[in-house]
Amino acid sequence: MKSKSRKVAIVGSGMVGSSCAYSMVNQAICDEIMMIDRTYDRAMAQALDLSHCMDFTGTRTKVYAGTYKDCAAMDVIIITAGANPKHGQTRLDVLDAAAVITEDIVSNIMAGGFDGIFVIAANPVDIVTYMVWKNSGLPRHRVIGTGTSIDSSRLKTLLSDVFSIDPRSVNGYALGEHGESQFVAWSHVTIGGKPILQIIEQHRERFSHLDLDDIARKTKDAGWEIFTRKGSTHFGIGSALAYITRSILNDEHKIIAVSAILDGEYGQSDVCSGVPAIIGRDGIKELLELNLNAEEVGKFSASCDIIRAGIHSLHLEERA
Amino acid sequence: MKSKSRKVAIVGSGMVGSSCAYSMVNQAICDEIMMIDRTYDRAMAQALDLSHCMDFTGTRTKVYAGTYKDCAAMDVIIITAGANPKHGQTRLDVLDAAAVITEDIVSNIMAGGFDGIFVIAANPVDIVTYMVWKNSGLPRHRVIGTGTSIDSSRLKTLLSDVFSIDPRSVNGYALGEHGESQFVAWSHVTIGGKPILQIIEQHRERFSHLDLDDIARKTKDAGWEIFTRKGSTHFGIGSALAYITRSILNDEHKIIAVSAILDGEYGQSDVCSGVPAIIGRDGIKELLELNLNAEEVGKFSASCDIIRAGIHSLHLEERA
Amino acid sequence: MKSKSRKVAIVGSGMVGSSCAYSMVNQAICDEIMMIDRTYDRAMAQALDLSHCMDFTGTRTKVYAGTYKDCAAMDVIIITAGANPKHGQTRLDVLDAAAVITEDIVSNIMAGGFDGIFVIAANPVDIVTYMVWKNSGLPRHRVIGTGTSIDSSRLKTLLSDVFSIDPRSVNGYALGEHGESQFVAWSHVTIGGKPILQIIEQHRERFSHLDLDDIARKTKDAGWEIFTRKGSTHFGIGSALAYITRSILNDEHKIIAVSAILDGEYGQSDVCSGVPAIIGRDGIKELLELNLNAEEVGKFSASCDIIRAGIHSLHLEERA
Amino acid sequence: MKSKSRKVAIVGSGMVGSSCAYSMVNQAICDEIMMIDRTYDRAMAQALDLSHCMDFTGTRTKVYAGTYKDCAAMDVIIITAGANPKHGQTRLDVLDAAAVITEDIVSNIMAGGFDGIFVIAANPVDIVTYMVWKNSGLPRHRVIGTGTSIDSSRLKTLLSDVFSIDPRSVNGYALGEHGESQFVAWSHVTIGGKPILQIIEQHRERFSHLDLDDIARKTKDAGWEIFTRKGSTHFGIGSALAYITRSILNDEHKIIAVSAILDGEYGQSDVCSGVPAIIGRDGIKELLELNLNAEEVGKFSASCDIIRAGIHSLHLEERA
Repeated sequence: MKSKSRKVAIVGSGMVGSSCAYSMVNQAICDEIMMIDRTYDRAMAQALDLSHCMDFTGTRTKVYAGTYKDCAAMDVIIITAGANPKHGQTRLDVLDAAAVITEDIVSNIMAGGFDGIFVIAANPVDIVTYMVWKNSGLPRHRVIGTGTSIDSSRLKTLLSDVFSIDPRSVNGYALGEHGESQFVAWSHVTIGGKPILQIIEQHRERFSHLDLDDIARKTKDAGWEIFTRKGSTHFGIGSALAYITRSILNDEHKIIAVSAILDGEYGQSDVCSGVPAIIGRDGIKELLELNLNAEEVGKFSASCDIIRAGIHSLHLEERA
Repeated sequence: MKSKSRKVAIVGSGMVGSSCAYSMVNQAICDEIMMIDRTYDRAMAQALDLSHCMDFTGTRTKVYAGTYKDCAAMDVIIITAGANPKHGQTRLDVLDAAAVITEDIVSNIMAGGFDGIFVIAANPVDIVTYMVWKNSGLPRHRVIGTGTSIDSSRLKTLLSDVFSIDPRSVNGYALGEHGESQFVAWSHVTIGGKPILQIIEQHRERFSHLDLDDIARKTKDAGWEIFTRKGSTHFGIGSALAYITRSILNDEHKIIAVSAILDGEYGQSDVCSGVPAIIGRDGIKELLELNLNAEEVGKFSASCDIIRAGIHSLHLEERA
Repeated sequence: MKSKSRKVAIVGSGMVGSSCAYSMVNQAICDEIMMIDRTYDRAMAQALDLSHCMDFTGTRTKVYAGTYKDCAAMDVIIITAGANPKHGQTRLDVLDAAAVITEDIVSNIMAGGFDGIFVIAANPVDIVTYMVWKNSGLPRHRVIGTGTSIDSSRLKTLLSDVFSIDPRSVNGYALGEHGESQFVAWSHVTIGGKPILQIIEQHRERFSHLDLDDIARKTKDAGWEIFTRKGSTHFGIGSALAYITRSILNDEHKIIAVSAILDGEYGQSDVCSGVPAIIGRDGIKELLELNLNAEEVGKFSASCDIIRAGIHSLHLEERA
Repeated sequence: MKSKSRKVAIVGSGMVGSSCAYSMVNQAICDEIMMIDRTYDRAMAQALDLSHCMDFTGTRTKVYAGTYKDCAAMDVIIITAGANPKHGQTRLDVLDAAAVITEDIVSNIMAGGFDGIFVIAANPVDIVTYMVWKNSGLPRHRVIGTGTSIDSSRLKTLLSDVFSIDPRSVNGYALGEHGESQFVAWSHVTIGGKPILQIIEQHRERFSHLDLDDIARKTKDAGWEIFTRKGSTHFGIGSALAYITRSILNDEHKIIAVSAILDGEYGQSDVCSGVPAIIGRDGIKELLELNLNAEEVGKFSASCDIIRAGIHSLHLEERA
């Protein structure tokens, strides 16, 4: 038989990694999931717990613990492991720790001869994705960060509530950094294909209570709202990872806002930032360049500058 | 327990009705499907054949044959039974036959005290939907025709091929009559939220081979292309019926191009025509009025006139 | 990436073949479906109709028409095309016609270098499966007939009704010929793991109305009951094909009653008959030999003799 | 429309409760999930995190935080909140704490007029289920504990590995206490409907390495193996809860090993213990009484005695 088992490794078996695995098990997205963790026992425990689901989900995914040595056989490797801020650390301290961890993970994986697609959720995701690209030496289309996919989903959920519409009938993106400098590209938010700005304009009274800045703020802060109340956000981002992975494995060519290495697109280069991309078997097939208005172009540029500054602070060239 | 079994009746157990049932069984859209047919034995045979799927699909839907007397318990009734053109019949002859059949079906159903939602696929669907509305006496939001849902799906499939994009990342509608006078509202076709007209404009060379008129023509003719080669079209339309029914039963509020009775929307009244609508538990929650350009407004108006002429030719008021 | 698109060809684009494809589209069982038909236009029409479902099913399967030349790339080839009895033909005439058609199909497929798994639904399925094995020269574990999978499903559906139990909590098999000489192995029918014979024994009064012979007869005749009322049976068998194909592609190792070439199992050789088998990526991994009681052994032997007689009547050795 | 939204409340928004909700969102098991927690903010954070999944899962479930006051509208209420052992506490201390918490939860829920089905996962689950029955005053068929459903799933997973068979082709139960005194009813474990004891007997050499006592021990200890490595077990049990809830809401009549209040079945009364039960819209439709062998009867009786002792130690009659 020509086709082979679809294999996905998840590096980092914490809340995000295991939630992603659980979603993939529920949706039968791949045939095998290999959990990897600094603490092998934790990976093993997650795999064991997940393996007890099949009788109930009606799907069939082999879940097991593994190590970097087994990564060559994987189609997709998801990275959720990163640096957790410790008390008293500055942003740069955290970035530096992330760089060390990422370099270690990627060099271990590449040493085994991995030749698939990386999907990264570790934060700060835009910078870590850039690091993975540099560290792996893979072409840029095979390194994908979750970027603003989750922020875009939050935006759609919020609009879905306000307009009482299925989120899949809403389209729109948060762009730029998966962080403070992100913004909503309102010029391209549509409901059933109709621009939201037109809808509001035509129904001023009905939507007089609607404050787009507030929606954008809530979009950006949703992760924080969750984090402060339960200590982590993992279901939404786990689902985003599963969704991107499915679009890769099934060669679906879905358009998803992900963190991509830019090489001239949107007037930006040598930076990794959240933009809509066509996702298929080879990773990013192509970026979709929206005709942002002047204000949005400015915001995107500013957001890229912030990410770029973070990247530069790592002095990656000196680490090589 | 407060919630109850979700029950759907399908009137007409031919290719369209049974394909719709098969899709609903595969997707676990409801708990019970009652097949109704002029020939009770055919309904029974379809139900029996469908009942043998559960062991394989992993879903659980009770499928059985029934009669109009059992319709009061249904949440949704799908009408696929209609008049088949016979040799030598004119369009008006067929319309007249459809009117007789529809009136008979609806009066039988309403006599039993049905109080749910009608979804109609019988052709000519815009006119039959109008008839069901008149014959049933139900409020207009509870009578939904499949209209241009299938044509819109065909449009998205065609664009999905041309642009190599998942059809669910394409948005767009064929509007007006599910028939010759329909048209594509290109002003509102988007790919990943970006207007298709902008994409083509910005990449003239790359898309120089792209002929939108040809796409629109293929959208309209796709049903005919299938029909002439295999004698019926049923999988696409069966899936459209399942999709609309799911949006009703789950109160999803998806936006779908359906045939709706217009009462001022798009400047049209007392006609039933294909427009985007928000579909939920009460049927059509609201119509989405797109800002069509002048040419599109003209086409929509012309299409509605053709449907209206068909409706008038039936002299429904004299039949009452 | 190591993994590849999962490709299935369906030879015969009639009711069974297209229903199978529809089920696979609804369940996202593979990435590509190639429809093949004597009449290319019919294959094309089915593919076109099926391609319009994706917008509604939320899955993504490329469906297209193809020819035998394209078969080398397939993982699984499903054969539904066979001989339809014509007025005045004897059983042997039909068998002979089936042999000619099957030989033609298989030689065309093998000429292109096919190296995957055959799944056969064409009737008489036990004999046609044997022919495909002989004609293809493939090892026996890579040639699988639907056999009594559908009869077993019908048995479970009937028992599910009688006992008011989910069919997936019922286990049991019809064994032997997918035809008149099949029988139910009551010694191994269980409900929730408890032998049905014990249940009946312990609750004589409650199940006094229950006639196992009648259930067995209905199991065998269900196809005929459907056929006489609507001219074909296709949903149940289409689902069976999708189920077997999924167990192959996902390497699920499900145990399914299929038509398998026997080589000593159940004391039978050089015949193809319905027995439980473990189905995975290499086709039949192993047959499950039930400890049938003496009466059942006799029935199985008799059924194999009937199939064997059919095979011998073809004089396959002289055709080579 | 006759049917209504399917509503499920989950009391306890920790790992188990939120994993259960995530599984239900992924599988579209109900229309609404209300998260309840001692700490309202945690329930809100879980609901918010879960609400961001819909864009990715393609399903549509409204997830929100609520309070006991909103419970009357629920179809099913899942209880995952319980007492966590603290350092130095005896088993009786923990039991006592569980009793206080359970009584508080149930009285709050019943005060609002709840009239649906309870599904309990809080530990010690057999005793807590008994308490919920007593505290709620509901008929016993509407109070269901997860009991040995998860242990049975672990058993099937282990056997699935050993025999290389899909877990859904394996049937078998762990019975009795969801705890130390549970046991595997080997007399009723089947693989593809064939008794496992026969398989081993007939293939002594092939399965000479197989130690059923070891399998039973691993079944019982699997939860502990997971717990010691990651601090909780939640994916398997979350899936079990989703599975039981689906069988209730869809009236599937699946047979599942759950903790049920016994009233003469298996010779036991006034105790709650793990046995196979038919699960449908009214909760437990009927218990399936297996013909256990003498050794198994003894083990079941001993296990029930242990559960009964725990119940008695609570002096529930004095608390009323």
